[in-house]
Amino acid sequence: MGGAAALGEFVLGRRKPLSLNLPMDYPAERLRMVAAVEAAMDRLLPRPAEEAGGKRLRPVLVVAAAQLFGARRADPLPAAVAVECVHTYSLVHDDLPCMDNDDLRRGRPTAHRAFDEATALLAGDALLTHAFAILAQSYAHDAGLVAGLVADLADAAGSRRLIGGQMEDLLAERGRRATAADLAYIHLNKTAAMIEVALTLGARCGGAAEAEIGVLRGAGRDLGLAFQISDDVLDATADTQTLGKTAGKDAKAGKLTYVSFHGVDRARQIARQHGEAAAAALRSLPGDPGLLVWLAAGIAGRTH
Amino acid sequence: MGGAAALGEFVLGRRKPLSLNLPMDYPAERLRMVAAVEAAMDRLLPRPAEEAGGKRLRPVLVVAAAQLFGARRADPLPAAVAVECVHTYSLVHDDLPCMDNDDLRRGRPTAHRAFDEATALLAGDALLTHAFAILAQSYAHDAGLVAGLVADLADAAGSRRLIGGQMEDLLAERGRRATAADLAYIHLNKTAAMIEVALTLGARCGGAAEAEIGVLRGAGRDLGLAFQISDDVLDATADTQTLGKTAGKDAKAGKLTYVSFHGVDRARQIARQHGEAAAAALRSLPGDPGLLVWLAAGIAGRTH
Repeated sequence: MGGAAALGEFVLGRRKPLSLNLPMDYPAERLRMVAAVEAAMDRLLPRPAEEAGGKRLRPVLVVAAAQLFGARRADPLPAAVAVECVHTYSLVHDDLPCMDNDDLRRGRPTAHRAFDEATALLAGDALLTHAFAILAQSYAHDAGLVAGLVADLADAAGSRRLIGGQMEDLLAERGRRATAADLAYIHLNKTAAMIEVALTLGARCGGAAEAEIGVLRGAGRDLGLAFQISDDVLDATADTQTLGKTAGKDAKAGKLTYVSFHGVDRARQIARQHGEAAAAALRSLPGDPGLLVWLAAGIAGRTH
Repeated sequence: MGGAAALGEFVLGRRKPLSLNLPMDYPAERLRMVAAVEAAMDRLLPRPAEEAGGKRLRPVLVVAAAQLFGARRADPLPAAVAVECVHTYSLVHDDLPCMDNDDLRRGRPTAHRAFDEATALLAGDALLTHAFAILAQSYAHDAGLVAGLVADLADAAGSRRLIGGQMEDLLAERGRRATAADLAYIHLNKTAAMIEVALTLGARCGGAAEAEIGVLRGAGRDLGLAFQISDDVLDATADTQTLGKTAGKDAKAGKLTYVSFHGVDRARQIARQHGEAAAAALRSLPGDPGLLVWLAAGIAGRTH
C-alpha cells in the first residue's frame, strides 16, 4: 500500500473500520467527556468560566489518556481542568494588545475586549495559579501524584516550553529573520507542549509507568505539531465564521507559518504524517488506543 | 508599663536587649541569609535575575521560619526562591501600563520600561510558573512536602488572596467608593498573603506541625499588615530616592491608604500594634524566635 493511500485510509478512519473493530462510538464518547469536563470546571473553578468553551481538546486528551490505562490511580477530571486553565490563561494573555492584539476568540470578544486589559491580565494570572491549586487540592490523598503532575505542568507551561515558544513567536512577528527551524521550535513549544502534558497528566492519573508516560509524551509531540500545522492551514483556507477567530490573520501579518514555508498541500501532508506518527506510538501501548487514534486522525485532518 | 512605652521598647529592640539575651547578630544573620538566597536564585533560575534585588524580605522570612523549627525536614532555600519568584512576578505585572503604570521599581526602570510590555508580561508569567517548578523539582524526594508547599503557595497567590487583593485595589483606584473594610481586605490579600506564605512554607521545610504552621500563618498576617501600613506611611513621608520607587504616588492618585484614612501618626501606631501581635505569636512557639521578632520590629517601624 502506497504512502498516500495509507494516509488517506488513516485520515478516513478506514484502517480499523469503526463499525467492525471498535467497541465505542467515539464522537459520542468525546461529547460525554466534554460534558464531564464542563461539570468538573463548574465544580473546580471559583466562578463560572466566562470564556467561550471551545472544543476542550486538551482536557479530553487528559481523560482519554487516563482511560487508556484504565484510570487506575485517580480521577483525571481535575487534571483535565488544570490543563484547560493553563491553556485558557495562555490564550487570554496571548490576545492582549501588547501581544497578538486580537479582538475575537472562539467566536466571541477576547477577554480584554469584553472586560478590560487589567482584568484580562489578572484573570490569566488567576487561571495559571488555580491550575496548580487544583492539582494540589484534588490529589492531596496521593502526594506522589501531586508532585508528578505539578512537575510536568510547570515544565510544559514554563519558560523553556510554552512561554519560550510565545517569546520566539513574538520575536519572529517583530521581523527577526526566522528559519524553518525557528518555526518548528515555536510550534513544538507554543502548541505541542500543552498537548504533550495533557497526555502525560492523563497517563499519570491512569497509573502509567514512566516508560509509558514517555511514549505518550512523544505521541503528544507529534499530535501537537499536527494540530498547529492544521491550524496554519485553516487560517489560510477557512473563513472567520468557521474559525471563530479572525481568519487570514497570519498572512496579513506576514507571519511565518507552515503554509508560508511549504504551501497548503505540503503542510497538510506534514500534518497527516505527524498524526500518523502519533497514532503509531499510541498503538504500541498495551491498552486500547481507539479513541485517542480517532482523536489524532481528527486533529491531523481537521476542518475547524 | 504603658502601651506607648511598651511599643517603643519593642520597636527599639529593648525588651530583650541584643547584647545580653540574644545569641545571634541579627543584622549579620539577615545578610548571610540574603546572600544564601541570591546564590540559590542563581542556581534555580534559568538565567540571572534581571530585576534589582530589593531586600529579599520574603525569602529571608522563609529561611528564618525554617530555622525556628531547626530546618529539620528540608533545605528552605528553594522554597525561599519560589516565594520571591511569585512576589517578583506580582510586581512586574502590577507595574504594567494597564495596572499601576509605574516607571520605577527598586530604584531601577520597571521591566516593561527596560524591555517592553510583552516581554514583561511573559517574564511575569514565567516567574509564576517557575515557582511551582522549583517546588516540584527541589523537593521531589519528599512528595508530601511538595504537595503542602504547592497548595499553600497556589492559595496565597490565587484569586482569593494575592490576585483578589490586586483586583480590589484596581477597582478602588478606579473610583469605586471604598471603605476602611475594603482597604483592610486589599492589604490582607495583596500584601499579607505572601508574607504569610513565606512563613508557612519555611515552617513546612522546618518540619513544623500543622498547629505551629497555623500560628505562623497568623503571625504572617499581622506582619503583612504591619508591612503594608508602614509602606503607606513611607509613601506619604519619604522621598523617591529613599524609596527606590516613585514617592507620593498614592496621594497624587487619590489612592485609599491607611494614611488617608487615619493620618500618619495613627497609621504608624497601627503598624506597630500589628508588629507586636506578630512578635507575641512568634514568642508562643517552642523555638527561639529572636531573629523573626527582630525582623518583625524592623518591618513595623521601617524607614525604607
